[in-house]
Amino acid sequence: MVEIPRGYRFSGVSAGIKSRAGAKDVSLIVADEPCVAAGVYTTNQIVAAPVVLSRSRTPCDSMRGIVINSGNANACTGTRGQSDADEMTRLAASVCARGATAEQFLVMSTGVIGRFLPMDKIRSGIASAAEGLGASESSFLDSVDGIMTTDSGRKIASRLAATSRGDCRLLGMCKGAGMIGPKMATMLAIVVTDAPLDPVDAQRSLQAAANRSFNCISVEGHMSTNDSLVLLAARPSAKTPALGGNDLCNFGGELTELCIELAKKIPDDGEGATHLIEIHVRGANTDADADAVARSIALSNLVKTAITGGDPNWGRIVSAAGYAGVPIQPHRTALKLNQIPLFERGEPLPFDAKQVSHAIRSSKLTVIELDVGLGPGSATHWTTDLNTEYVRFNSEYTT
Amino acid sequence: MVEIPRGYRFSGVSAGIKSRAGAKDVSLIVADEPCVAAGVYTTNQIVAAPVVLSRSRTPCDSMRGIVINSGNANACTGTRGQSDADEMTRLAASVCARGATAEQFLVMSTGVIGRFLPMDKIRSGIASAAEGLGASESSFLDSVDGIMTTDSGRKIASRLAATSRGDCRLLGMCKGAGMIGPKMATMLAIVVTDAPLDPVDAQRSLQAAANRSFNCISVEGHMSTNDSLVLLAARPSAKTPALGGNDLCNFGGELTELCIELAKKIPDDGEGATHLIEIHVRGANTDADADAVARSIALSNLVKTAITGGDPNWGRIVSAAGYAGVPIQPHRTALKLNQIPLFERGEPLPFDAKQVSHAIRSSKLTVIELDVGLGPGSATHWTTDLNTEYVRFNSEYTT
Repeated sequence: MVEIPRGYRFSGVSAGIKSRAGAKDVSLIVADEPCVAAGVYTTNQIVAAPVVLSRSRTPCDSMRGIVINSGNANACTGTRGQSDADEMTRLAASVCARGATAEQFLVMSTGVIGRFLPMDKIRSGIASAAEGLGASESSFLDSVDGIMTTDSGRKIASRLAATSRGDCRLLGMCKGAGMIGPKMATMLAIVVTDAPLDPVDAQRSLQAAANRSFNCISVEGHMSTNDSLVLLAARPSAKTPALGGNDLCNFGGELTELCIELAKKIPDDGEGATHLIEIHVRGANTDADADAVARSIALSNLVKTAITGGDPNWGRIVSAAGYAGVPIQPHRTALKLNQIPLFERGEPLPFDAKQVSHAIRSSKLTVIELDVGLGPGSATHWTTDLNTEYVRFNSEYTT
Repeated sequence: MVEIPRGYRFSGVSAGIKSRAGAKDVSLIVADEPCVAAGVYTTNQIVAAPVVLSRSRTPCDSMRGIVINSGNANACTGTRGQSDADEMTRLAASVCARGATAEQFLVMSTGVIGRFLPMDKIRSGIASAAEGLGASESSFLDSVDGIMTTDSGRKIASRLAATSRGDCRLLGMCKGAGMIGPKMATMLAIVVTDAPLDPVDAQRSLQAAANRSFNCISVEGHMSTNDSLVLLAARPSAKTPALGGNDLCNFGGELTELCIELAKKIPDDGEGATHLIEIHVRGANTDADADAVARSIALSNLVKTAITGGDPNWGRIVSAAGYAGVPIQPHRTALKLNQIPLFERGEPLPFDAKQVSHAIRSSKLTVIELDVGLGPGSATHWTTDLNTEYVRFNSEYTT
């Protein structure tokens, strides 16, 4: 049972963009009143048209909604792609909210790169989605279905944030299982809340949450052209002023927790993945340094294939830490794999290889704990293993 | 027919370090007179004992030789590993060159990480290798066999450098097919030449050659703990002074060409690789920026799997360039795959997908040419595709 935040309606329909008949591929999320919007986007310089547009419209306090299509990323599509993205927001504004302008809508696209949007299908899809808007759980789930591509299931999460004025609701959805074009070119995530927020606070809270969640996951480390994370929040008023102080702090904590829950679902659903790998790094000079070490381990194909094979090959993990480009102290470095100590003070520990292998093979989750022996910095990343299924999926001839 | 530079002897024997019976695993390269040595080593902070030792001994002009073992990388072995590496050079000095000291030998190791060297086998191996030293082609090939691990064949190359005093000979060997521990933890490369060089010139020429060759290849981008490239050259004398001016320039050019030829053999031999991928980037602001873009493409699993599948999925290539962290100009970016234009001025070109797919599938070599539309910077990288064979090889349970 999903608790829907007050003030939003949802819809998802099939517009025929995806090849599978009846698959939902156009979604709308509409705010009853102008709302606050914040956004965090891909830093790829090759950036899709919808990202360019949405990025220019957040943060703000007069947003009316988001229009999303799946099946086509509208990326690498030049000036025509830009005008198509703009047209999507104009269409959404005209059918969803009386008097709204195109600038009051955000747009997201996900799917194949380098093909122009089928605007006739998009047009009729948006019109039909607008007719179906509702505030029920099933409407919400329809909108989740409309953003999915290769996902094996819906990715949603919710939280309540306790404030001095009562609980606020947070509800989020995301999609993604790797940047696995041409079928998918994107991680998309949307969180809506009935908490009233100042736009600057909304942007800060969202960026902080992204840094601990969506910026700490990888499947193969290929940054997409379309990655977008958007937060819609209630616009503060005289009657319901913006959260501040402890209330804002509580809200930010819940938002981060929600984003971590959503983000972990992406590598957990990586194509062919048999393991979710959680990498805890501590003992770095700074959190940023720990982040670099965790990322280096997460992106190593040798680490990922070792986990696939249940191979306690700790040399791959330690050496990936060594080339992360930030200081570590080799002689004080220590490693545990699924709680079993393998390496300490720069020297190998005796261990039962069969026991470690069994510990890896018998659990979907593999936990790597690395202490690099210097300071107080720590970070956590999540990734997948790398197996033949992933390679088959991504080397399939698709034309 | 290999031309052996004057002044060196070679040997390679089986000492029983590798599990396969009779496989050569200890090699010696000995200079008849004290010679010049230069070295370029892994920048991994987790660095093997032999690298620490050899790094401290180059550049110099009184080297007598190199002792190498395969089958064990002597990496992550703490203080015992350091004294074992030192002991190897002491043993080599005592049996190879009358009056030589341990400091006059370099040491290289390659193989499994995190196990102590079997010093009894090393000891008898070095003694037996010293007895077999010779200047013939077959002695040289024995020494090449002794450094190999998972290589499918010998990797050697030779050049003649024209100088005002006649031709100098350059002869090189390398090993490596990925950083694919525990069977292999290393790229090793050795070049010997009878050209007389000042040690500083030798070091500069070697670093320049490495930057265009061994630093431009990847199999999976996992920097090893043991990577070493060493150059031995004749010591200048009153009769044969050090090369300078045009002669040195010619020598440096041949050394670079030789290193490129050797380096390309490594991804060409990557486990399971069905394609060697050559990535030319131009139009970057600087060569260093072009290098970053080429590296980003070379390390993308999505690019590599697309080539495996003969998939003309250019969005993956362009978007990998976009997150390399250096400026590109998306609206002037252009891409060719095996000479077929796919993307220009930020927009897709119409192309025959079957033709491109056939062009990829019908050749071992895939050539990617990317112009990022800004300036005069260019770079070339080489990598492999990524296929199920690689994953199987690296996820095999090895304990």
